[in-house]
Amino acid sequence: MTDFAKTRAMFDIPEGVTYLNGNSLGPLPSAAKARVAGVVADEWGELLIRGWNKAGWMAQPAVLGDRIAPLIGAPKGSVMVGDTLTIRVYQALSAALELVPDRRVILSDSGNFPTDLYMAQGLIGTLGDGYELRVVAPEEVSEALDDSIAILMLTEVDYATSRLHDMAALTARAHAVGAVTVWDLAHSAGAIPIDLTGTNADFAVGCTYKYLNGGPGAPAFIYVRPNLQNHVRPALSGWLGHAAPFAFEQDYTPAEGIARMRIGTPSVLGMAALETALDVWEGVSVETLRHHFITLSELFIAEVETRCPDLTLASPRDPAQRGAHIALRHPQGYAIMQALIAEGVIGDFRAPDVMRFGFTPLYLGEGDVKRAVDVLERVMRDRLWDREEFRVKAAVT
Amino acid sequence: MTDFAKTRAMFDIPEGVTYLNGNSLGPLPSAAKARVAGVVADEWGELLIRGWNKAGWMAQPAVLGDRIAPLIGAPKGSVMVGDTLTIRVYQALSAALELVPDRRVILSDSGNFPTDLYMAQGLIGTLGDGYELRVVAPEEVSEALDDSIAILMLTEVDYATSRLHDMAALTARAHAVGAVTVWDLAHSAGAIPIDLTGTNADFAVGCTYKYLNGGPGAPAFIYVRPNLQNHVRPALSGWLGHAAPFAFEQDYTPAEGIARMRIGTPSVLGMAALETALDVWEGVSVETLRHHFITLSELFIAEVETRCPDLTLASPRDPAQRGAHIALRHPQGYAIMQALIAEGVIGDFRAPDVMRFGFTPLYLGEGDVKRAVDVLERVMRDRLWDREEFRVKAAVT
Repeated sequence: MTDFAKTRAMFDIPEGVTYLNGNSLGPLPSAAKARVAGVVADEWGELLIRGWNKAGWMAQPAVLGDRIAPLIGAPKGSVMVGDTLTIRVYQALSAALELVPDRRVILSDSGNFPTDLYMAQGLIGTLGDGYELRVVAPEEVSEALDDSIAILMLTEVDYATSRLHDMAALTARAHAVGAVTVWDLAHSAGAIPIDLTGTNADFAVGCTYKYLNGGPGAPAFIYVRPNLQNHVRPALSGWLGHAAPFAFEQDYTPAEGIARMRIGTPSVLGMAALETALDVWEGVSVETLRHHFITLSELFIAEVETRCPDLTLASPRDPAQRGAHIALRHPQGYAIMQALIAEGVIGDFRAPDVMRFGFTPLYLGEGDVKRAVDVLERVMRDRLWDREEFRVKAAVT
Repeated sequence: MTDFAKTRAMFDIPEGVTYLNGNSLGPLPSAAKARVAGVVADEWGELLIRGWNKAGWMAQPAVLGDRIAPLIGAPKGSVMVGDTLTIRVYQALSAALELVPDRRVILSDSGNFPTDLYMAQGLIGTLGDGYELRVVAPEEVSEALDDSIAILMLTEVDYATSRLHDMAALTARAHAVGAVTVWDLAHSAGAIPIDLTGTNADFAVGCTYKYLNGGPGAPAFIYVRPNLQNHVRPALSGWLGHAAPFAFEQDYTPAEGIARMRIGTPSVLGMAALETALDVWEGVSVETLRHHFITLSELFIAEVETRCPDLTLASPRDPAQRGAHIALRHPQGYAIMQALIAEGVIGDFRAPDVMRFGFTPLYLGEGDVKRAVDVLERVMRDRLWDREEFRVKAAVT
């Protein structure tokens, strides 16, 4: 049994805040303060350029990748950290497309996070005529898989509704028609059990600032199935993915294995925070976490449906069909969320009408859920959201 | 007259170290310690997700771009910060190529930093038949510019030898034959005066961890000539370059202006360090800096040539023809550099035989130059480099 009291004590959560937004930005692991300060003062400040070797900066993208691997059911040597999730989507898509050179269609769904669709559109614009991004409803994906499909690109957990795709079944179906899969784990990694090896997924990408708590703008990761790695041509063929980066050759020769998915110079400060964030996961079972998440979210749904009848559940009712956040709909969702935040209950809003509440047991317990619903009930009953200040949209919603 | 005593006091340089490697990684601006700690504890820790608005994280890439702009002769609204230099090269190349759709050749030189050549190769691999990367010797670039050339891609200051290209003349020549220019300012920004507006350069990219002292893996930047910006299609069409990122539309619509060169979620910790690094530049004239650099480097060359006859100058002798580092050649360059570092004089080595010494007056004076040559003379005279431990190459050289 994972001891979540122990992990809760490893985070700084501000006094008076109930933080239900780890699905967007995980809270601060307390140890990150000293670790980041140490990297700045003792490594950058004292070691200077020598930090690349002596402090292990150069090795970090692979070291951190190997630490994320067990959380997503991947073996060592299959995950590389660095860059942004958006860049990793492009990297995976461009590599995947070349594995099926006679096909031209990238299949995705309308529940995908927009940046994934945008990057596919951007790549298609570069590739030219004949390529197509085909977007269907989430429930139509399986049927839309036919032998015209080159790539199946899906986000496993819908960023808005939390609806969960069946990675194993869809990967098997994609492979049966000869398609290659690119899974976006943005809302899965650290939230639900993932078995990349067992599902035989080809490519996967994810970010580390949500459930992995790596900090704002923390580096992303990419997974490539081990027996595919050496067949993949990196379009983003940066020098640190070269077989011999410090030989400074004029022609690109990809490194063996996952190392070819490195691109440029990685963000050392970002990796330092992620390092301490991953320490929290030592000894944590994602399966146990999932069990506790379901308990918390079922409690939340039951309380909301009893006490806030004007709110509509936008997530699947069956906990096996959803990720680790719960979405509620209301036409005034934006203002309601602002009122909640003003009362210390932090979730977030996604246009046009979805309020999201994340429930990771790493730092949340039943008391937090009850407090959140108490506040939500009051906001709805007393129409606390119905104030001008809560209707003005900020740049980031 | 810029007061460099003031800027020197703004850096942490370890006791006993003469740091001549700001051309690879600038030293720590003292204020970065408190700033980064504040972003971690007070912004991430206290504001949590609200930091994107309340702490200005979302605006930072453009704000920092506008602060870099005057250092490279660019107007406000023309520079965007984020991602790595390697990614920015790809972004610039792919956008530039589409501006000249009837041409297929990217022209570069053999002195370019390899990652620039690799990214061109990677992009060409995606574009398919007919595209070509043509690499000529640096002195042959001008002659190689003809009406087959789509893109002229050059690094202004050679990373190894410090040889400086004539940006104004080559840009004019490129434009005369209908080519678009992509300038890599990795070894120029903060090192030499640059006039992107005056030279009419089309695209420029650069990093901030060298002469701008932004820290290890600090974010890169891209410049797009203002009247080109709205004609550019971003191949790396990430959600934060969308006209309305938080509308979560399914189709990509580029933002107006330089904002379309944003890609994904930026590294907030990396930007915080860069912010304090740019504070050092307030009131600093790059022209004055250049004048002092020349004084320091001329002193270095004169002393080395007098006292270390076995070393060969690999940089142009005319200071007007070089950037802000000096390169010396020796067959045992690697071991010599290790011996220097062991004695507290930190430069770096680039295969096969180049030792690099960077001289930015922001934190270096004549005393540092003299101390460095004293040590170098001793290392050469007493053959201090001739030890087994200095010959074993580290992962990063």
